[in-house]
Amino acid sequence: MVIPEDLGVSVGDIVRIRKNGLVIQGVVMPKHAYSAPDILVIKLESGYNIGVSIDSSASIEIIGKKPIEQLGVEQPRGAVGTGPMVKVIGTGGTIASKVEYETGAVRPAMTSEELLEIIPEAGEIARLDVEILMSILSENMEPEYWERIAESVYRAMMSGYEGVVITHGTDTMSFTSAAIAFAIQNMPVPAVFVGSQRSSDRPSTDAATNFIGALLAAAKAPFAESVVAMHSDTSDLEIAIHRGTRVRKMHTSRRDAFQSINAQPIAMIDPYKREIRITSSDYRPRSRGEPILYNGFEKKVALIYSYPGIEAELIDIMVDKGYRGIVIAGTGFGHVPEKLVPSLKRAVENGIPVAITSQTLYGRVNLAVYSTGREMLRAGVIPCEDMLPEVAYVKLSWILRRTRDMDEIRKLMLTNIAGEISPRHTKNLYR
Amino acid sequence: MVIPEDLGVSVGDIVRIRKNGLVIQGVVMPKHAYSAPDILVIKLESGYNIGVSIDSSASIEIIGKKPIEQLGVEQPRGAVGTGPMVKVIGTGGTIASKVEYETGAVRPAMTSEELLEIIPEAGEIARLDVEILMSILSENMEPEYWERIAESVYRAMMSGYEGVVITHGTDTMSFTSAAIAFAIQNMPVPAVFVGSQRSSDRPSTDAATNFIGALLAAAKAPFAESVVAMHSDTSDLEIAIHRGTRVRKMHTSRRDAFQSINAQPIAMIDPYKREIRITSSDYRPRSRGEPILYNGFEKKVALIYSYPGIEAELIDIMVDKGYRGIVIAGTGFGHVPEKLVPSLKRAVENGIPVAITSQTLYGRVNLAVYSTGREMLRAGVIPCEDMLPEVAYVKLSWILRRTRDMDEIRKLMLTNIAGEISPRHTKNLYR
Repeated sequence: MVIPEDLGVSVGDIVRIRKNGLVIQGVVMPKHAYSAPDILVIKLESGYNIGVSIDSSASIEIIGKKPIEQLGVEQPRGAVGTGPMVKVIGTGGTIASKVEYETGAVRPAMTSEELLEIIPEAGEIARLDVEILMSILSENMEPEYWERIAESVYRAMMSGYEGVVITHGTDTMSFTSAAIAFAIQNMPVPAVFVGSQRSSDRPSTDAATNFIGALLAAAKAPFAESVVAMHSDTSDLEIAIHRGTRVRKMHTSRRDAFQSINAQPIAMIDPYKREIRITSSDYRPRSRGEPILYNGFEKKVALIYSYPGIEAELIDIMVDKGYRGIVIAGTGFGHVPEKLVPSLKRAVENGIPVAITSQTLYGRVNLAVYSTGREMLRAGVIPCEDMLPEVAYVKLSWILRRTRDMDEIRKLMLTNIAGEISPRHTKNLYR
Repeated sequence: MVIPEDLGVSVGDIVRIRKNGLVIQGVVMPKHAYSAPDILVIKLESGYNIGVSIDSSASIEIIGKKPIEQLGVEQPRGAVGTGPMVKVIGTGGTIASKVEYETGAVRPAMTSEELLEIIPEAGEIARLDVEILMSILSENMEPEYWERIAESVYRAMMSGYEGVVITHGTDTMSFTSAAIAFAIQNMPVPAVFVGSQRSSDRPSTDAATNFIGALLAAAKAPFAESVVAMHSDTSDLEIAIHRGTRVRKMHTSRRDAFQSINAQPIAMIDPYKREIRITSSDYRPRSRGEPILYNGFEKKVALIYSYPGIEAELIDIMVDKGYRGIVIAGTGFGHVPEKLVPSLKRAVENGIPVAITSQTLYGRVNLAVYSTGREMLRAGVIPCEDMLPEVAYVKLSWILRRTRDMDEIRKLMLTNIAGEISPRHTKNLYR
């Protein structure tokens, strides 16, 4: 944890900053180790944090003091191991779980010490600080849990950890990795999601190698993004690092179930040699900037896959039930049956954005080629480029807590915020 | 068209057959060229056709005559080319379309002659008989169109064609190929679906090579199944033959968008050398048997993908709206959030089967591993092995027109009817 003492204030000080005619009032927060020395992080009344550059045009006035334990920041406690400080946030996956041999029950490792008992080599890579945030099966994830995870990851990044590992069930891990990519922007260090396809009491478990790969990424990798670390093949020798907004679980049971879709993995990690091989130059590097938390996800968003026989009333019901956004995974270029178009139009006219992706998963939607697509465009749908259906769902849910203005929603959906949209594809991105 | 004259009756005769204490009454129908000589195909009052083996225990009485033009069978008309007789059924894809250079509009080739104008080499492979059954964009496909296509393919098979090619839009082609696989059983010859990812007025069109590949399969391949013929890669040199119940469009725009999932392609076809290379020994061979038409698809079936934040009321609404079946593409092994389980239970208790597949697409559902899955099983859901979500949707829709008995539905869903379920996977079926 870095305290911005060189600017004459301490963490917890309530300050009023005047700069260029603006007045900013809030509580001084801890800074990340990489932060530029002239940046002060202020928690506003609204709960949001902003970074303020304190140059000669700024004046600071200390108007009070808040006890540090009320700031929601943390200092490492119970950290074990050597090397860079890494925060490990447990959410409930089978990874890093401990089998109680008396009962056979699997429960998450509760402390840093317990984690090192299971994976002793982890302590040679980083100093670990484990927090069990929640303990749920990932099929039971909800947008409000994404918010709690975002808050926790953000706090760790604000508190100066060199990286964050989030252990997570694999079922919906890619939804959460996308949620964190949108909720925390300007990440200074990586947030690495990791899971396990086989629990750690099985000989074929991938828990330890995946975890070591994730830890190496969190402690040492040059990128600072929300990523997923999982087996790249069945060899146990390589952990792939997938961008959190470009990854999807593509197999029910295989250890290499996770795949980058419409993108290359960012890196491959050898968990034995402890080597990180960067495989894509397109990543956000670690930085001295402060992370920015834009938390909150709208719950009333629907994700619908189109199919022959789908009824228009399904869309009407969503509108009538008060849904605030609809994401459709259409067929081919993103089509729905023509008979659905009036219902899409009605949704849009009611202020409910309709975002279009494709159930082919690979490739880019294009509603300009065929007449059905053009009718959909006239109805006001948002064609979401090469975004995965699940990622468009998470993104729309996130945007709807930022704005309800339709033009703004459309603009944000079509702006590449966290690597979820690419301008074009190279040939090797498929098969 | 083969007329079963050797049994003393003619096509169109209304007969009463007595055999083993049963009385079967109906109209004598044409037989396929491969049919066993002692089989008589009878159209019953119900509209269904059955094959009756006329051995020494059977007696036939002619009780009337129906004009042949009322039988719904056909004789080749306007066929062009040389070689095996192949029926080409147009449903409206851009494949085999004709660009009108005056207007730039694309319309399907309406006659066999027009098709040969576009793809002259087709006439060297087979005698073509083209029928434009419908002309719709495939995103507008509906279960009732599947029924019309099934009727038409069945009629062609009953009329002695050596194979059937169905041109179809690519968006929902795999839904229709699955529908035909269930609707027509005991196929004597192949039903080959073919589409085109680039229309025939574009230099990169795949229309001609795909069509030649499909035609070769229909005329000469040793298998007799519902299959899809599309580019296997971007080389233009190889057309893959995918089983109709195992294929999925996996890219919005690439010519090699179609992929076999959880299965190997059945064959690869070189459209230039006109060679068929069989790549899987697991196929149904051409036979002398009669096809059996089990037509009809229930429209009130829903296909729902699970996601974090999905609400249980979505299931309740389906039940309340009179849906007769629900297919869920769950996460991972096939899970839904635990909070949905009571709604699934209510659906099952209301006689609405709930079939479970996985949105990972690859792999097999397994609801026995985690507690959520076990709760789902206790609620009475049907875990659909390694079936694709779309195929489970088509299959459940088809089963619901055969029976409403829940035990029977479960049994049929879990019985491999058309290659949609495999007992186990080899390692090379993924990636």
